[in-house]
Amino acid sequence: MAAAEEEEEEEMRRRFMAPPVSGLRELRRRRRELGSRMELLIMETQAEVCRALAALDPGASFAVDTWERKEGKLPFCAMGVSSVIHPKNPHVPTMHFNYRYFEIEEADGTKQWWFGGGTDLTPTYLNEEDAVHFHKTLKEVCDKHDLKLYPKYKKWCDDYFYIKHRNERRGIGGIFFDDVDSPSKEEVFQFVQSCAKAVVPSYVPIVKKHCHDSYTPEEKLWQQLRRGRYVEFNLVYDRGTKFGLLTPGSRIESILMSLPLTARWEYMNTPPESSKEAEILEVLRNPKDWVH
Amino acid sequence: MAAAEEEEEEEMRRRFMAPPVSGLRELRRRRRELGSRMELLIMETQAEVCRALAALDPGASFAVDTWERKEGKLPFCAMGVSSVIHPKNPHVPTMHFNYRYFEIEEADGTKQWWFGGGTDLTPTYLNEEDAVHFHKTLKEVCDKHDLKLYPKYKKWCDDYFYIKHRNERRGIGGIFFDDVDSPSKEEVFQFVQSCAKAVVPSYVPIVKKHCHDSYTPEEKLWQQLRRGRYVEFNLVYDRGTKFGLLTPGSRIESILMSLPLTARWEYMNTPPESSKEAEILEVLRNPKDWVH
Repeated sequence: MAAAEEEEEEEMRRRFMAPPVSGLRELRRRRRELGSRMELLIMETQAEVCRALAALDPGASFAVDTWERKEGKLPFCAMGVSSVIHPKNPHVPTMHFNYRYFEIEEADGTKQWWFGGGTDLTPTYLNEEDAVHFHKTLKEVCDKHDLKLYPKYKKWCDDYFYIKHRNERRGIGGIFFDDVDSPSKEEVFQFVQSCAKAVVPSYVPIVKKHCHDSYTPEEKLWQQLRRGRYVEFNLVYDRGTKFGLLTPGSRIESILMSLPLTARWEYMNTPPESSKEAEILEVLRNPKDWVH
Repeated sequence: MAAAEEEEEEEMRRRFMAPPVSGLRELRRRRRELGSRMELLIMETQAEVCRALAALDPGASFAVDTWERKEGKLPFCAMGVSSVIHPKNPHVPTMHFNYRYFEIEEADGTKQWWFGGGTDLTPTYLNEEDAVHFHKTLKEVCDKHDLKLYPKYKKWCDDYFYIKHRNERRGIGGIFFDDVDSPSKEEVFQFVQSCAKAVVPSYVPIVKKHCHDSYTPEEKLWQQLRRGRYVEFNLVYDRGTKFGLLTPGSRIESILMSLPLTARWEYMNTPPESSKEAEILEVLRNPKDWVH
């Protein structure tokens, strides 16, 4: 193996969980292209989040699966990073984030592109301090780009993660956006980059704070019922999941990795008034403004 | 309370789990109408199945919930009985049945009516003897009405309970039919009645045979993974569930009672070749003819 290649492999091992699909050399050659920059951001975000979580859980290990689509070359370019963390401890909230970029060439040769993404939190129990920390971190990131973004994407998140048949949101929100193609490719990328970099600071301090909290069997049970709702949202409403399941040749294991390890359903479970369980339901029914 | 009323109440308690929506006196007055006969069949089927299961499980008790639609009178008549049994023991299969009747008056005053229904089995592990017993019981019932029915409705069942994204059926089938309005209302009702009466003899002997089987934690775990697939089918594909979730004023707790108490998802779970787990997957991927 040539020294340059060895060095490249070494760098990849240091920076990423897995080699970028396009190869590091190719990404370097096309380093000014947005597709390459987004691919690097995706790989870096994956590595950052995994490492930050592994640092809190010495028993954690990550396996890397790579695969190629059977269908071969697609008439569009789609790339993204997606993650759902379902912690065992009911005092550590579930967190989901996804950042993605699409390019498509129309029949007349014009190119369309857009970004989408978001980060959102789904606690089993409400901890106001955590909710404020999470939203505040996201708001600060948004505000650096445009003061209109946080209120708009916070509402989009509350609206998107709505379980209509329960009249509940999936969680306490965060930010969500899709089909964003203005003001410019560069500016949207910069914003997406900031959001991706905010995943660790918005979530990991909450994990650190609660991962050693003790919990009761009743708290674990409530977590499992809430995970049932998570499954309901993802299978009934989530556009990414529905689109994925309908796409021929899609990789089911990657799409359904968003589902929890275990979930529970009970007929007519209604928590008593003024309980901790009723408290979280209240904010899932009536989303709050956590930061002003 | 008048003696006649008392007697009526006493009879209802004996025959049914709950009073028929239309009232026993009204059902008697209109006893020649098909709607009344179907309503009685529904109430009787509910009672028969609950009693047969309770006889095997002395700890079993059934609670009756009644409710009225907020929306008031509907422009159509819909009635049905629906049940899903998810046993704790992984050697006792899950069973689902539903029999339903619809009447609708068109704008021009003509009345449309149709029946739908089916009974199907979802074992965690394959037991050929049970599969044959289940299908044979259903075939015998169908054959008494028309020799074409079992093959047609058996295939309809295999096609309907298909989890496309897994290339698996939900279970080992049974019978399924919808929109049936020929040869005549009387004949279809007679067929539906026979099917409803066959629920207990098709399923309860299997429960009796296996309800004291011992099982390992690994068997329980495989049951939980299979229940995850059950959830996937019901939330992603089942027409009754989807229609129910979209209908304003529908009762969510009644629609989602089909979901198991608990379910599990594992990334990339593939049972070893020639295992008992692989054996059931094989027949879920390639439905078999259990009786000829």
